[in-house]
Amino acid sequence: MTTAYSQLRATFTRLSRFTHLSAVAGWDMQTMMPPEGSKARSEALAELSVLHHQILTAPKVGEWLEQATQEDLNDLEQSNLREMARQYRHSALLPESLVEAKSLAGARCEHAWRRQRPANDWEGFADNLREVVKLSRQEATLRAEAAGISRYDALLDLYEPGMTAQKLDGIFGELKSWLPQLLQTVVEKQRAIDFVQPHGPFAIDKQKALGLNVMKRLGFNFDAGRLDISAHPFCGGVPQDVRITTRYNENEFITAMMGVIHETGHARYEQNLPKEWLGQPVAHARSMGVHESQSLLFEMQLGCSERFLKSIFPLVIEQFGEREGLDVTNFINLNQRVQPGLIRVDADELSYPAHVILRYEIEQALIEGEIEVEDIPALWSSKMQQYLGLDTVGNYTNGCMQDIHWTDGGFGYFPTYTLGAMYAAQLFQTANKAIPTLQDDISRGDLTALFQWLNQNIWQHGSRFSTDQLMKNATGETLNTDYFRKHLESRYL
Amino acid sequence: MTTAYSQLRATFTRLSRFTHLSAVAGWDMQTMMPPEGSKARSEALAELSVLHHQILTAPKVGEWLEQATQEDLNDLEQSNLREMARQYRHSALLPESLVEAKSLAGARCEHAWRRQRPANDWEGFADNLREVVKLSRQEATLRAEAAGISRYDALLDLYEPGMTAQKLDGIFGELKSWLPQLLQTVVEKQRAIDFVQPHGPFAIDKQKALGLNVMKRLGFNFDAGRLDISAHPFCGGVPQDVRITTRYNENEFITAMMGVIHETGHARYEQNLPKEWLGQPVAHARSMGVHESQSLLFEMQLGCSERFLKSIFPLVIEQFGEREGLDVTNFINLNQRVQPGLIRVDADELSYPAHVILRYEIEQALIEGEIEVEDIPALWSSKMQQYLGLDTVGNYTNGCMQDIHWTDGGFGYFPTYTLGAMYAAQLFQTANKAIPTLQDDISRGDLTALFQWLNQNIWQHGSRFSTDQLMKNATGETLNTDYFRKHLESRYL
Ligand SMILES: [Zn+2]
Ligand SMILES: [Zn+2]
Repeated sequence: MTTAYSQLRATFTRLSRFTHLSAVAGWDMQTMMPPEGSKARSEALAELSVLHHQILTAPKVGEWLEQATQEDLNDLEQSNLREMARQYRHSALLPESLVEAKSLAGARCEHAWRRQRPANDWEGFADNLREVVKLSRQEATLRAEAAGISRYDALLDLYEPGMTAQKLDGIFGELKSWLPQLLQTVVEKQRAIDFVQPHGPFAIDKQKALGLNVMKRLGFNFDAGRLDISAHPFCGGVPQDVRITTRYNENEFITAMMGVIHETGHARYEQNLPKEWLGQPVAHARSMGVHESQSLLFEMQLGCSERFLKSIFPLVIEQFGEREGLDVTNFINLNQRVQPGLIRVDADELSYPAHVILRYEIEQALIEGEIEVEDIPALWSSKMQQYLGLDTVGNYTNGCMQDIHWTDGGFGYFPTYTLGAMYAAQLFQTANKAIPTLQDDISRGDLTALFQWLNQNIWQHGSRFSTDQLMKNATGETLNTDYFRKHLESRYL
Repeated sequence: MTTAYSQLRATFTRLSRFTHLSAVAGWDMQTMMPPEGSKARSEALAELSVLHHQILTAPKVGEWLEQATQEDLNDLEQSNLREMARQYRHSALLPESLVEAKSLAGARCEHAWRRQRPANDWEGFADNLREVVKLSRQEATLRAEAAGISRYDALLDLYEPGMTAQKLDGIFGELKSWLPQLLQTVVEKQRAIDFVQPHGPFAIDKQKALGLNVMKRLGFNFDAGRLDISAHPFCGGVPQDVRITTRYNENEFITAMMGVIHETGHARYEQNLPKEWLGQPVAHARSMGVHESQSLLFEMQLGCSERFLKSIFPLVIEQFGEREGLDVTNFINLNQRVQPGLIRVDADELSYPAHVILRYEIEQALIEGEIEVEDIPALWSSKMQQYLGLDTVGNYTNGCMQDIHWTDGGFGYFPTYTLGAMYAAQLFQTANKAIPTLQDDISRGDLTALFQWLNQNIWQHGSRFSTDQLMKNATGETLNTDYFRKHLESRYL
């Protein structure tokens, strides 16, 4: 007998194949595509996005979802059904025309941004962004009305199921109560350190070789993924073929190396999602915050720790040889340097939350209609001054145009970075208790036990549990910001 | 009023967007994809191929095609309608299940071939190929019955509309009447030449730089395309973003360089198809034979000519410096060397037709059911011996497993190579008459007039005319093998 659930299963398998093609074409767009391919690519991706929407929101799917609740399903199937319903609900709300318009406007804005950012062309960028914001507000309104929540909460729920602006105000409010003081103390303390810029240039092929070696150390499966170059580093592709990117600068190698470590954290999560469930919603990563917890666990908890940095230092020397400024103490210092700066992706972990809170406050107001696109630069400058003491007036390139996120309407995404940082601290401290040898393992460069723990507690579960449940199973409690504070204080004070 | 023709136009635009995605994912599969991505990629491409088939063969499309014949259409629209009907006819015959099975079997066979070829694993390869042949015969039978033609002719028509085995027997029969003697004479004559292998190694990054410089000279638009590496060189992507590939060998650079020149010929045709019609069937290249005429015009007519080789010799020296064996006379000799060998893609233009005729005879018998897959090696060996005097017994790697064409069921394709060579000779001799300065232009490295002539006579027309009409418009007559003979005799005797 054909059950409603098995019909749903087949439909979502089919959808995942289209998602596969859109992931490959999207990756290619960022890494390989020449400029004249842009228009046709955007149109092709928009067409696929319309198709995806049509299949997912077909009336039959709604009926099957109803019927399947009456069918005899095991735990995992029930979780899969819950995630199917979630996707359906999120999609069925939007008319096709809005889906297509958003996809086209986003691609256009992002493509132009690649030229406009280096040209500091805020006016040109704002023209495209206004269209993106208009469509995102329409989307938010539809979602908010259906769910009976605020417009911004409705978008937030797309990336971090269960999260609300009210909860975020609490969490971010707490951070604000101790972080600025801690930041100031650490900056003061680090004045005593003599940071030396290692003497470049660092040839790009050697930086790439270092990145590949570090990825190997971190267990990246090269039979199921690649490392390439893009303007904005990301982790894309599909679980069977994960594509991470970084960008290189000949003058220094640490940013690219740490970018690779970060994306490798995302990649290992993807590469270890439950194999037998791939193609089904329950096999997706739990949330953007949980995704980011894996990249930040790799980059910040593990990657910037003294023991890990010592353990990979020989790989650095292997590529670049002995050089002025390239001693292990300075290498550690540079990776633990706290220095408020303009660029979020280059920020240390103490300044990072300030960047996120700034964007959260702006995008929330933007979506709720309290401000307009033309208000962004002034707000950006005043908050940058207030939270980090930095002046960005007139500098759009490294101000509000530094990010790719808003270009395609990803409002509601930014908070997940800092949620991820806090989940990461909580998970890593728990792993340290669970694996008594972990610190020694890190020194020896043997991360097997850590990866096993992550696989058992996070990766293999995909979306089986809610984020709260996942954290509770793994650490005994839901998100607790104390872990993050404890981590920062023990590393930096 | 919405006409049937405008409905068709919208449908084919939509189809071209899916073709775009399949082209990108297919290119990626050959150039970028790690091994574990293979299964999911094949499934995704098969899913898209099923979708394409569903959209193209929907009953409405058949009705619109009928109705549109009554509508008021201009010449180009009529040509577009004719090509739409051709695509519909070719697709509507095949049941979805066969389309999907063929796509899966082809992808599996091709993927395994990448390991099996270097391992000389004929048995393993034959297992997959049998499935491909079985499905191709089913396809051929359906097409043949509908069109009232033979099974092989029905496949031939997919690549070279209007071509038949009977015509080919005539053309290839004529070639066979003078080519073996000419080949022998030239091989004898060239015994007097002292060919020197230029002293390697030739670093791959320098070979790539040379390839890019030659592409520039040949007018490749780098804002709308790329050069990459794959096991089997090809020209893929879409007209707005043409992806060509080559493969490098550190021991010699001429094969890769000539491969790039060849694919650039394909690429320029694609890049210059009628812009305002892109996405519609009439904007497609006319046929595989005409496509190959452009690559062979670039590679053989132009690329291997004394004047062109002299004109690019400085680009060669620029990369590799003065070396033993790297003088201009020897460079020309090597490019005009006639030397029957095992590998089709490395063959000189005098031996090449023998490779094609051999494959034509085998694949025709295979599709007509006169032989089976296990008969291929023996037939291959005996024909290789007969046509080129070479022994391939037991050498599958460089025998019947050397090509990618049969792996995904591309039976009927091979003859287009030699048709292309003959069209190329006819077109180039006509261009030489039309452009009195052409030979001097080539020496000066200014190919503008030639490209204008090709654009006016071939590229910009897409599929507007039949191949016969296109050749007649361009050269005053349909295919005439005398041009090819004259070209070979004047270059080699
Ligand atoms: Zn990340
Ligand atoms: Zn070709």
